[in-house]
Amino acid sequence: MRLAELSERSGVSTATIKYYLREGLLAPGRQRNATTAEYDEEHLRRLRLVRAMIQVGRVPVATVREVLRHVDDDSLGRTIRMGAALWALPQVPEPDAEDASVQTARREVNDLLETLGWSNAQAVVTLSPAYRSLVVAVAAFRRLGYDWDSELLVAYAQLMHQAAVLDLDAVETYPSETEKVEAAVLGAVLVEPMLQALHRLAQEEESARRYGFEEGGGTGRETP
Amino acid sequence: MRLAELSERSGVSTATIKYYLREGLLAPGRQRNATTAEYDEEHLRRLRLVRAMIQVGRVPVATVREVLRHVDDDSLGRTIRMGAALWALPQVPEPDAEDASVQTARREVNDLLETLGWSNAQAVVTLSPAYRSLVVAVAAFRRLGYDWDSELLVAYAQLMHQAAVLDLDAVETYPSETEKVEAAVLGAVLVEPMLQALHRLAQEEESARRYGFEEGGGTGRETP
Repeated sequence: MRLAELSERSGVSTATIKYYLREGLLAPGRQRNATTAEYDEEHLRRLRLVRAMIQVGRVPVATVREVLRHVDDDSLGRTIRMGAALWALPQVPEPDAEDASVQTARREVNDLLETLGWSNAQAVVTLSPAYRSLVVAVAAFRRLGYDWDSELLVAYAQLMHQAAVLDLDAVETYPSETEKVEAAVLGAVLVEPMLQALHRLAQEEESARRYGFEEGGGTGRETP
Repeated sequence: MRLAELSERSGVSTATIKYYLREGLLAPGRQRNATTAEYDEEHLRRLRLVRAMIQVGRVPVATVREVLRHVDDDSLGRTIRMGAALWALPQVPEPDAEDASVQTARREVNDLLETLGWSNAQAVVTLSPAYRSLVVAVAAFRRLGYDWDSELLVAYAQLMHQAAVLDLDAVETYPSETEKVEAAVLGAVLVEPMLQALHRLAQEEESARRYGFEEGGGTGRETP
């Protein structure tokens, strides 16, 4: 297809596509003559992924380039290739290792992984930004002086594992290795906001089921 | 307790506490004499909540004030009170109603709520920022030209409903109505980043279980 058709099918303007080409986020088309290049379905797929990262995920251009470098690295096995691509996405900064609440949180997260039997996750804790994010989130609880029910954390982790099984089942429906890795990146960018919205909507539904919509004083008896 | 003790127990500096007092995010202490005020456990609790919103949730001060106004409004029933407090948190902007992908997404989300039997959520779709966020997230998929398996969306929603049941069970362990609403706000600010981190960690675990850590070519056979 020509540039105009690529633009129409992707909903991305030709000016933006040219910018992505210049920035190396999209491979050049096959040159048909001095002024016309030909693009294929692979360009369209890659363009949508770039668009999702930049427009929805607000990922900086340099980071997108880094993510794509891993997506395209077929010397890597699937776990490492997906991991590297996802790890290149913007992440929470390294927590302050000297901070007492960070040290406590690290122990708690390690205990959690042990309880869950997530031995693979245990093997990569020094590398994984997801592990780091979890430590930061648990440390925030601790630092604010909140107690934390470790059984609840286990229950949440088990639900999120069920979500991960759904994610990877969906990823596996894609034919090529590259498309699988692309689908994993897309999931991180597009599915996560959806899960968060579903979670809040589910809270509203569950709250209304339990307590109804009545005025204060209904189920709202103060029991101080 | 004196200001110094409040500061020590919360980990918030006295200068910051004074700032929160001036901004009306914290009720004044009981004045003991011209220079000394006395604070109680309720101040400590509120201070931790304010800290969580500002430091972890990056919620602007004016928004925190608005959230707290709803938290403290005991004329409201529990569902509305929690809802109002959560709805006051920063949300995604209203989607463009003219946009075709938004209209499609709205229909899809409405069908989802119907399938799930979330009749309470259906009743508040015009008000709920969670509904709006979900429409925006689904519309992003559509606009980028991705197909979407509606059964997968149902499965994710059911998992998130299980998470919401855990959330509200935890919220109900708090004694007073105000503390319950505070716990719901805290959940939105502190638990959501934790769930996201758990989700990514679970993906890494599940990926390693399925595909191992081997080099490219192992499970990484290209089937283009």
